[in-house]
Amino acid sequence: MKSRPILGLTMGDPAGIGPELCLQALRDPSILGRCVPVLFGDAKVIERVGKSLVQSSSSFSSPKARNQSRTRLKEESHRVLSLAEWEKVTTVSEPLIVDCAAIDAVKIKPGNISAACGRAGFIFIKQAIQSALAGKIDGVVTAPINKEALQMAGVRHPGHTEIFTALTGAGRSCMMLYSEVLTVSMVTTHIGYLDVPQKLSVKRVRDVIELTAEAMQWMLRRKPRLGVCGLNPHAGEHGLFGRREEEKIVAPAVAQARKSGLAVEGPLPPDAAFTSGQRKKYDAIVTLYHDQGHIPFKMLAFDTGVNITLGLPIIRTSVDHGTAFDIAWKGIADPQSLYAAIRVATELAAGRKGRAA
Amino acid sequence: MKSRPILGLTMGDPAGIGPELCLQALRDPSILGRCVPVLFGDAKVIERVGKSLVQSSSSFSSPKARNQSRTRLKEESHRVLSLAEWEKVTTVSEPLIVDCAAIDAVKIKPGNISAACGRAGFIFIKQAIQSALAGKIDGVVTAPINKEALQMAGVRHPGHTEIFTALTGAGRSCMMLYSEVLTVSMVTTHIGYLDVPQKLSVKRVRDVIELTAEAMQWMLRRKPRLGVCGLNPHAGEHGLFGRREEEKIVAPAVAQARKSGLAVEGPLPPDAAFTSGQRKKYDAIVTLYHDQGHIPFKMLAFDTGVNITLGLPIIRTSVDHGTAFDIAWKGIADPQSLYAAIRVATELAAGRKGRAA
Repeated sequence: MKSRPILGLTMGDPAGIGPELCLQALRDPSILGRCVPVLFGDAKVIERVGKSLVQSSSSFSSPKARNQSRTRLKEESHRVLSLAEWEKVTTVSEPLIVDCAAIDAVKIKPGNISAACGRAGFIFIKQAIQSALAGKIDGVVTAPINKEALQMAGVRHPGHTEIFTALTGAGRSCMMLYSEVLTVSMVTTHIGYLDVPQKLSVKRVRDVIELTAEAMQWMLRRKPRLGVCGLNPHAGEHGLFGRREEEKIVAPAVAQARKSGLAVEGPLPPDAAFTSGQRKKYDAIVTLYHDQGHIPFKMLAFDTGVNITLGLPIIRTSVDHGTAFDIAWKGIADPQSLYAAIRVATELAAGRKGRAA
Repeated sequence: MKSRPILGLTMGDPAGIGPELCLQALRDPSILGRCVPVLFGDAKVIERVGKSLVQSSSSFSSPKARNQSRTRLKEESHRVLSLAEWEKVTTVSEPLIVDCAAIDAVKIKPGNISAACGRAGFIFIKQAIQSALAGKIDGVVTAPINKEALQMAGVRHPGHTEIFTALTGAGRSCMMLYSEVLTVSMVTTHIGYLDVPQKLSVKRVRDVIELTAEAMQWMLRRKPRLGVCGLNPHAGEHGLFGRREEEKIVAPAVAQARKSGLAVEGPLPPDAAFTSGQRKKYDAIVTLYHDQGHIPFKMLAFDTGVNITLGLPIIRTSVDHGTAFDIAWKGIADPQSLYAAIRVATELAAGRKGRAA
């Protein structure tokens, strides 16, 4: 157990399924054997969610079983630190809850979008990032936030990827969706359809190729094989469609990356790249816009995918689902995607240290 | 056998796999039991391809087997008509080859892109369309052409869909990809990524919804359930991304279609629409651009899909693959997609007549 990484978990939007997922992770032996989790969230919310989890799981069981559940919850209660106390901690050896005191737990309506919850979710992230930059934790795994709540709270960044990029001062970063069956990274992410082409450049595409290659090297411990999609139907079909974005942007970026020693092919016709015969040729496929990567990924890896932000000075992975407001605080949310995100963060942390050694 | 529809097959690019696929269809009892095929192509090309098919299929077999193959080919040779002879035909009761005399068969190099082959492929299509408009055949099933060859031949239309729309004078039309597992139709098709938004309008989206509903009614003989995708990530997430194309264009088109009695939902977040849980809610999903529909379709229905042009005064279906120049004239091309296209054309012909009756 000596080399378990210390992973910060952010609780996500308090009104979503993040709190109950994080609580399950803090309880689960398979997670505790792999890492030391430090939850950045709210102790009272966790307490409230814990109660509703016990109630929901025992709603059809005997009073005896309910009492046993309550005892179990009490027994496994975690050490709670205030932010001031956390600041003084120098070494972490047991699971902790860092109580960011960012919201009044009593006022939260599970499943509701609110500025207060958007603000709290943002504060949890900010605290976790600061701790990671300070080297107190080895990486951050995030539970889901709600983009509208974030916007209502006056946060300008549209999502996690952008928040992490800005708050860590990363020079270049991108989103990668990782799974056992398909891995895709994205040159652009949460912007409108029409805004994509102007964000494409040889440098940006090459950056994403390099970031993807680096992360896949950490995951696989070998040189990865990458593909890069074109923008237009049939990758432009030699200039028949589009404005030669493939020739002007994608092909030069691929050529430069190959020259630097990476195993990368493209531009690939987007509709052919993800067929079962083609996608197996690549360890990861670089896509140019959100849905080019998200459509095939969600088809193949729904609920098992992990969202990774590449290019940060810290490791960051995330669940690949939203706040699921419709089932929040009901004790029925499935923690598998969070567990997968924790597993991948653990592997990235080990692979990255291996490289540095 | 009395109600078998008469289906025109176009031979496609002579240097591709179209000729050998069509020849297999002309020979196959499962096809001949379903329709009466009339091949618009070139008799000499079919003869050359037939020989190479026999040679390739017998290359590892005995001289006796080879002789048997040759005999079989001779026995099943089809009636060949010139264009002038075809013009005089009033009723069709047996498979025919209409020799369009559009190319010098001896000069064709299998697997090569050429203006001559592009031109010939276009002429086969033109002849089939004229015959369908004249009511001599009940529909047209097309083998693959090559878009570059077409362009080299000076044909301005980028593909089959556009040729059929122009030559039949269709007021509105669209491409639909049909399969047993997923069916998608497309508001825009073979245009550049950046050209898509300006082609979107409430009328166009509503047209495609209506055309899709009509064709699915013919296929299923019941009212179909349709979904319509948004344009931006997360269908714009209430205006966070994009220029509100969902609110301005997709939502009003869906509302109008619902008002007219169609069962249609949208705008759907594109990356969620094709997950196994979601796509089963719809008999067909209307997509706004080529890859939004083609990426999921090819993942699920590669080699079994059928391309249908909706909105024409005639029925038109097609294989869902290209000319496969790398394996052309080698006798190894798989006719399953062409057979599926013939099956669907047969069903559409019956469904359409049912409606008219």
